[in-house]
Amino acid sequence: MKELSVNHLLGIKYITEEDIQLIFETADHFKEVINRPIKKVPSLRDITIANIFFENSTRTKLSFELAQKRLSADVVNFAASSSSVTKGETLIDTVNNILSMKVDMVVMRHSSPGAAVFLSKNVNASIVNAGDGAHEHPTQALLDAYTIREKLGDVAGKKVVIVGDILHSRVALSNIYSLQKLGAQVKVCGPNTLIPRYIRELGVEVEPNLRKALEWCDVANMLRVQNERLDISYFPSTREYAMQYGLDKELLDSLNKEIVVMHPGPINRGVEITSDVADSKQSVILNQVENGVAVRMAVIYLLASKIKQ
Amino acid sequence: MKELSVNHLLGIKYITEEDIQLIFETADHFKEVINRPIKKVPSLRDITIANIFFENSTRTKLSFELAQKRLSADVVNFAASSSSVTKGETLIDTVNNILSMKVDMVVMRHSSPGAAVFLSKNVNASIVNAGDGAHEHPTQALLDAYTIREKLGDVAGKKVVIVGDILHSRVALSNIYSLQKLGAQVKVCGPNTLIPRYIRELGVEVEPNLRKALEWCDVANMLRVQNERLDISYFPSTREYAMQYGLDKELLDSLNKEIVVMHPGPINRGVEITSDVADSKQSVILNQVENGVAVRMAVIYLLASKIKQ
Amino acid sequence: MKELSVNHLLGIKYITEEDIQLIFETADHFKEVINRPIKKVPSLRDITIANIFFENSTRTKLSFELAQKRLSADVVNFAASSSSVTKGETLIDTVNNILSMKVDMVVMRHSSPGAAVFLSKNVNASIVNAGDGAHEHPTQALLDAYTIREKLGDVAGKKVVIVGDILHSRVALSNIYSLQKLGAQVKVCGPNTLIPRYIRELGVEVEPNLRKALEWCDVANMLRVQNERLDISYFPSTREYAMQYGLDKELLDSLNKEIVVMHPGPINRGVEITSDVADSKQSVILNQVENGVAVRMAVIYLLASKIKQ
Repeated sequence: MKELSVNHLLGIKYITEEDIQLIFETADHFKEVINRPIKKVPSLRDITIANIFFENSTRTKLSFELAQKRLSADVVNFAASSSSVTKGETLIDTVNNILSMKVDMVVMRHSSPGAAVFLSKNVNASIVNAGDGAHEHPTQALLDAYTIREKLGDVAGKKVVIVGDILHSRVALSNIYSLQKLGAQVKVCGPNTLIPRYIRELGVEVEPNLRKALEWCDVANMLRVQNERLDISYFPSTREYAMQYGLDKELLDSLNKEIVVMHPGPINRGVEITSDVADSKQSVILNQVENGVAVRMAVIYLLASKIKQ
Repeated sequence: MKELSVNHLLGIKYITEEDIQLIFETADHFKEVINRPIKKVPSLRDITIANIFFENSTRTKLSFELAQKRLSADVVNFAASSSSVTKGETLIDTVNNILSMKVDMVVMRHSSPGAAVFLSKNVNASIVNAGDGAHEHPTQALLDAYTIREKLGDVAGKKVVIVGDILHSRVALSNIYSLQKLGAQVKVCGPNTLIPRYIRELGVEVEPNLRKALEWCDVANMLRVQNERLDISYFPSTREYAMQYGLDKELLDSLNKEIVVMHPGPINRGVEITSDVADSKQSVILNQVENGVAVRMAVIYLLASKIKQ
Repeated sequence: MKELSVNHLLGIKYITEEDIQLIFETADHFKEVINRPIKKVPSLRDITIANIFFENSTRTKLSFELAQKRLSADVVNFAASSSSVTKGETLIDTVNNILSMKVDMVVMRHSSPGAAVFLSKNVNASIVNAGDGAHEHPTQALLDAYTIREKLGDVAGKKVVIVGDILHSRVALSNIYSLQKLGAQVKVCGPNTLIPRYIRELGVEVEPNLRKALEWCDVANMLRVQNERLDISYFPSTREYAMQYGLDKELLDSLNKEIVVMHPGPINRGVEITSDVADSKQSVILNQVENGVAVRMAVIYLLASKIKQ
């Protein structure tokens, strides 16, 4: 049986194209499962998973939880706000304590880039990175690429533009790694102040003009813009941002082709994209959410098989 | 097999007397179940339910959760405080995201009147209203009527007075609808400033004097009074309110008959009712709580059967 | 079959040595269970347990939850912050409401000493005290003694020193009761202002000098120090506290024997103990956490057998 080359999912950077393809094939199977009346499989009845979220999250946490429940794993949730982390306990102590209660896998979101890698070196459990600061968010990139593959048949050879605040986005970085590993061409588009220097070092071209970017691409991934981070981009308001980097129906219809519109959510309707774009046939935003559960089931299932060996 | 006339439980206003009777017959069965040593039935192993509470709640949320677990449904909880709703996502986006994860039913509490109706028109899932502002709280009214039926044999022909802050109460409005549909006579009693105009349009008589109201009724449903809302009723304090609209043992014993005392909880002991009344044999307050689980099991079970068709 | 002499676990004060030994023998069995690939037993499928935490807690709540899930009990969680307790409902009302939903057992943490005892006299359910103010924390004392028994073969005859803030510690008091009942010798060591008078009445000797205490003991239980409580001990900072009552590797190695180092967590690394002590072979801190799940499974299992009679 094929297996992953890694014992953790710390970032797309650390996995191979074969790993990604294996996750996709496994997700295909689980996508069938979650569309059956009984959406559960007994695969992981012997696995206990702790979801440790040091940052708030809605859809990511819910998606992981549903994935785990549908694999019949035992799940314990640990939110930072109600935790003794506020009492000054170190990250390693917190996680080691949880592991001593016989937990096999940890899904962690943390505000520090590198937190997941650090943890994997210091504790004895399989770690899934559910977002570490502005670094990586690997399951999001996997579900994004899976959705492109579903919609366009393949990722290889496709042209994908990522639009918005690249600087603060873990979604952008993980997407760049996964799309490149799968053979897609990637550009980014956004205010100069929100594009980090290392982007060019990754071989990613910067296209400052949204219309040109859209005319080039097959897929546009419109990132969420956070008000508090617009300041440093010299935009006086989201309104000005939307005029330059927002996607509305008029712009979408004026292109000489159909492009696929993605968004990692939650959407600021009227900022990154307008409501008619979000709800249009070209939008695969809700497919991304649905695929998220299947892809996370696949990741957890494949990592769990390595634990059991 | 009999079934509900509706696909959602949005309010008592939208269901028929036959619906209510069907819910009661089904609840009779589940009440037996939850009094057995093993309190679970495998009925809804193929249903996933999301509890989405945009307002805090203790007993309602716990009661729904227990009802769902005892039906073996898969349950995911979503609290507004830990949600991306605070990031500005719209209600429809939030719920559509949850539904894309293959959720079949949504139980929602929201501060806006009409939120449940709005949702049912815009998303593709069965909706149960767990309270929408001061509008409706249908499962509370069902468990109240179920408790009257249990105690007095029938609801038809019984005289019920609802006492207190009618203006801000979703419990009052849902009770009026259900009691009238089941053939009871309903009066309300409370400070004039806390009685909305539409009450009389519903054919409900207002009795300003508590003693007279109690002498008339078979059942008194004593609503919770909230300090912050007493202001507009010109009562300087809960003490003054209690003197005029509170039920104590002396008043209860001075009536020439036994009445049934109800309260939706949580009780302000010494305000709406005194402790000796709350703990008296005439009080069915804890029966209401117990029946709440059985009635909610019935509602969820009956709505789920319509999904599966 | 042997059974407990009590229907609740309110404190170590109220149970016998035989009770403790029975809990340990039962925990031995469950410790095997949680080290198997499938960590679950179907023992309590007919029991519903409510975890009611009026104070924040991480490891205790997680440990109880895992213990309950591994016994296949139905679990509902109730956190004070999201509860109607803030609306002024009394403790008895809150718990009676939860019990009316057919809950068999309540695990409660509360800030008031005596809250668990009070509850056990006023509601009809089996109560497990998960900490009541500075009074008792019986399951912590049981897992501590169980860990000593595991490490040293027996508790009887062993010398145990409890170091730190005895005054504010429910861990200290419960440990004193359990160690004395099991035939250990107990001393306490700490700043005079943090040692309550009743300690001597319990037959516990006070040793103000940490080195002397360590030279005497087989086991040192290093209690957590809380900054806000150091004030009354006349220590200007945790640094000064650590110099006098903290355990570092140098001190540990300078003793003419191996002692067992315990800590109830969460650790202030560098205050009560240094990192090299916490992570040394003499430390059993993570064993305590692991044993916590087995001991809590035993307590819940034994109390549940009494309910079912």
